[in-house]
Amino acid sequence: MHRTHTCGELRATDINKTVTLSGWLQTSRDLGGMTFIDLRDRYGITQLVFNMETDAALCEKARKLGREFVLKIEGTVAERYNKNAQMPTGDVEIIVNSLTVLNESKTPPFTIEDNTDGGDDLRMRYRYLDLRRNVVRESLMLRHKMAKVSRAYLDSLDFIEVETPVLIKSTPEGARDFVVPSRMNPGQFYALPQSPQTFKQLLMVAGFDRYYQIVKCFRDEDLRADRQPEFTQIDCEMSFIEQEDILNAFEGLVRSLFKEVLGIDMPSVPHMDYADAMKWYGSDKPDTRFDMKFVELNDIVKGQGFPVFDNAEFVVGICAKGAAEYTRKQLDELTDYVKRPQIGATGLVYARVNADGTIKSSVDKFYNEEQLKRWADAFGAEAGDLILVLAGGTDKTRKALNELRLEMGNRLGLRPKDKFSALWVVDFPLLESNDEDGRWYAMHHPFTSPKLEDVAHLDAGDYGKVRANAYDLVINGVEIGGGSIRIHDRELQAKMFGILGFTPEEAQAQFGFLMNAFEYGAPPHGGLAFGFDRLCSLFGGADHIRDYIAFPKNNSGRDVMIDAPSAIDDKQLKELAISVTV
Amino acid sequence: MHRTHTCGELRATDINKTVTLSGWLQTSRDLGGMTFIDLRDRYGITQLVFNMETDAALCEKARKLGREFVLKIEGTVAERYNKNAQMPTGDVEIIVNSLTVLNESKTPPFTIEDNTDGGDDLRMRYRYLDLRRNVVRESLMLRHKMAKVSRAYLDSLDFIEVETPVLIKSTPEGARDFVVPSRMNPGQFYALPQSPQTFKQLLMVAGFDRYYQIVKCFRDEDLRADRQPEFTQIDCEMSFIEQEDILNAFEGLVRSLFKEVLGIDMPSVPHMDYADAMKWYGSDKPDTRFDMKFVELNDIVKGQGFPVFDNAEFVVGICAKGAAEYTRKQLDELTDYVKRPQIGATGLVYARVNADGTIKSSVDKFYNEEQLKRWADAFGAEAGDLILVLAGGTDKTRKALNELRLEMGNRLGLRPKDKFSALWVVDFPLLESNDEDGRWYAMHHPFTSPKLEDVAHLDAGDYGKVRANAYDLVINGVEIGGGSIRIHDRELQAKMFGILGFTPEEAQAQFGFLMNAFEYGAPPHGGLAFGFDRLCSLFGGADHIRDYIAFPKNNSGRDVMIDAPSAIDDKQLKELAISVTV
Repeated sequence: MHRTHTCGELRATDINKTVTLSGWLQTSRDLGGMTFIDLRDRYGITQLVFNMETDAALCEKARKLGREFVLKIEGTVAERYNKNAQMPTGDVEIIVNSLTVLNESKTPPFTIEDNTDGGDDLRMRYRYLDLRRNVVRESLMLRHKMAKVSRAYLDSLDFIEVETPVLIKSTPEGARDFVVPSRMNPGQFYALPQSPQTFKQLLMVAGFDRYYQIVKCFRDEDLRADRQPEFTQIDCEMSFIEQEDILNAFEGLVRSLFKEVLGIDMPSVPHMDYADAMKWYGSDKPDTRFDMKFVELNDIVKGQGFPVFDNAEFVVGICAKGAAEYTRKQLDELTDYVKRPQIGATGLVYARVNADGTIKSSVDKFYNEEQLKRWADAFGAEAGDLILVLAGGTDKTRKALNELRLEMGNRLGLRPKDKFSALWVVDFPLLESNDEDGRWYAMHHPFTSPKLEDVAHLDAGDYGKVRANAYDLVINGVEIGGGSIRIHDRELQAKMFGILGFTPEEAQAQFGFLMNAFEYGAPPHGGLAFGFDRLCSLFGGADHIRDYIAFPKNNSGRDVMIDAPSAIDDKQLKELAISVTV
Repeated sequence: MHRTHTCGELRATDINKTVTLSGWLQTSRDLGGMTFIDLRDRYGITQLVFNMETDAALCEKARKLGREFVLKIEGTVAERYNKNAQMPTGDVEIIVNSLTVLNESKTPPFTIEDNTDGGDDLRMRYRYLDLRRNVVRESLMLRHKMAKVSRAYLDSLDFIEVETPVLIKSTPEGARDFVVPSRMNPGQFYALPQSPQTFKQLLMVAGFDRYYQIVKCFRDEDLRADRQPEFTQIDCEMSFIEQEDILNAFEGLVRSLFKEVLGIDMPSVPHMDYADAMKWYGSDKPDTRFDMKFVELNDIVKGQGFPVFDNAEFVVGICAKGAAEYTRKQLDELTDYVKRPQIGATGLVYARVNADGTIKSSVDKFYNEEQLKRWADAFGAEAGDLILVLAGGTDKTRKALNELRLEMGNRLGLRPKDKFSALWVVDFPLLESNDEDGRWYAMHHPFTSPKLEDVAHLDAGDYGKVRANAYDLVINGVEIGGGSIRIHDRELQAKMFGILGFTPEEAQAQFGFLMNAFEYGAPPHGGLAFGFDRLCSLFGGADHIRDYIAFPKNNSGRDVMIDAPSAIDDKQLKELAISVTV
């Protein structure tokens, strides 16, 4: 037997018991006559004591052990002289009488501590050592708990977890598929699912009524900082429901997660139209932990001789409470920030509301005190506030001001990681046009239904005006999930594919199975999917999803620990009827 | 709102309530003055009534509805005149006052009934309709419950569910990998995991202590009747344990499943050595629902002038209780059965123990009554029993007699689907030699540890004598899962790769990450995996796993519903830096 107790288990009530523990040597202190070892396992740390006087040979042996050696000891639980209130086992120590080295360890390439000295690359290469650090293990235990709470909630609502296939069919729409050559069907390929979308809809056609799955999905996209080629979704679908039913069910899931995992009573989640989100925050995923809503200024600032504003399509600003004291240097930094190419504003206008109520702006040449007062009124700005204004094309300026708003939120400490603000963004546009190829694309996906009252716009070809029964859940400015009420009518689905540029033959070849299914009694249905990796990192207060994934890939899609992907041998290629063309 | 209640919910206590229901038209009966419709959803069936006298227009509308139309109705719950005790809702019916057709349906290609008229191919093509049948949906609900109970049990033992990657590294050992070309790393490929074996071992090195995952795995094998290219495992691993700890933990899981899912109190699971299983049943997965153990007869039957037995390496038989009345025709059938090429016996010898205690055999020419009496004694055969004997090479004859034993079990009704008998088979050989290439192969996998007391045989090159710390769980003759205590020592792991024919360079290239990990304090660990699809079908009493998979593939690895795999376009191939060579 390797242990009678774990390293996190012994208490004062266990004193005088004979116990066996196994674990890793965390630290070792040699005080001459005595040697202390902290023995660590997943459950905690227990102090071991070796005494030269009682057993010199054993103590000598203990002194020679290195960090991360795997030990098994037998000993007696004793009361500790210097109790450590920080540790659950801090009242006791083990007087060791027998020691077995279960395995040795080379010196790890970085310290196994919460604040390690290992860089990202090194930690990824030795991920199995990185995972020994409490912070990383706790992140994955949080993930486990999130999955457990999610399943319990969905089970309680009669959702059935159904596994959908991983080897499916490639469709050229949307992001790139990973493909898998079929040896038994030479020249043909499976694709890995970007989501189980069509399968969950087929489950609704099949009458499953309520489906969920915590499921791996795959996208062969160029990886930005925080994307992974394989990612996990909480994927759900319901029948005989309307949008409100889905929002209520999944608001319940999120509230249950906040309660069970973080002990937070989440207030009910407000709804905001997409149009309002764009108007007030310049973003379809606003961070509502802080207010700082956009104020549109065209009516107030135009026609008063300032050419930048007069020539701009759109003038819009925010009011940063209490930031009037910003120095010239800080304001220059903000100007530089908005002029960065990825944000692309041409300049930044500011107006400070001073303590005495006077207003000082960067455009005093063009606006007098009274005019600036009207600015301040529009924002409800008070003494001590800083008004920041951008001008230009509407879409671009909104986007830039969204970035500036978030930056000001950061600078003013308005985005603490332990504060949570959730929002349903609803009534998304159904379609968006692409300037490059002049085609219309589904904003959500081709299976999303238009709002009934907007179908007339669809029939009239006025696609930009059609709103969708689509919704996103946004928490702290992060899109946690989204979904829609689906089309369940073959004709409408065929029309939608037509609008998206499919010929009827293409639509039939790629999605015929779904459209055929709609002819056999498809119920009204809809659903959503949460990004589980991101949801976990949000709950854990982390910036990156990587720590919430046991074995993540780097930005080149590589697993540097196992060294994948890698070349495969010619025999394998030949069997698969493919060859490499590089 | 689409419904106030489901179709399985209304009872006599709901009489006079106004309700809204949605569902599918299961059946419709037009009795002239009245039309009855059975409305179906996942939760049950409710009878709807339309009356010509009360609302002729509505009744006319109802008469025109076809099977599988999707309806929404509003009406009043009424007491039923002809109550149906078979149905939970059989006390009531709905007097309908409003009817909406939510979707029409073409006539389904087969009936949506437990006993359908649809053949396999048709049902697979229209799997979304097949899934509407109660039996299929209930199979998948059973699967959901099995997963739920498994998770609850493992959670209660502090197992952490960790998702391991799907895009991993190809290794030429064992079964064929499915591979995935990497666009970002041209000429290189990921592989889909045949199991998360190395990752779960790394999680043990990482100190996770107890891991589980219900996880998809992939094998590009030629598909026999009941194999799928993607399948699901309950995958587990534990640290600081010995074999008994693992057997106890997972016997607990199985007992918990029997109790929670089937209401069966499973007795504790006996252990049997591999050697005994082969000796008594000629199989490492014996069906222990019935006894009929092998009896070895060399000592009794040889040297008495019957050349077939005298020349045979091995003579062995079984005793079929109460089968002495078998006719000549039945015995001929059994002889034909064992002579089939896939079984390969050269003949079958029988001996009947008659009611009067006399014995009549097919080899009376060679054995007198007294000698046959010694046969009967060896089997403990009584009046009415039938002794069946095979002879030949030991391995081949055991195999053949195993088949004959199972056949007799079937014929005698000793293998009922609702009786369950579980068995741990332990002490498997570590290695088996392949006659074709003269190499040694790991019987379980290369990470399995030898028994400590057999390491001397390993060092002596006497590989056939080395037993492994490996175990299988067998229920009703089906291997439900298996596992082993792993090697956690780099040197031993390297030696094992050497025995298996790897050069040190090959071993390092393919499994270096694991052997390196073993140098940093790997704990003793072991685990197992259950085949979840098979476990579900066993619990459901089915012969095939296919009904327990929502969207299975056929024997050519095709999903005939979505028509995958399929060709992909040249642009996609070019991006992936591969070409097709057929």
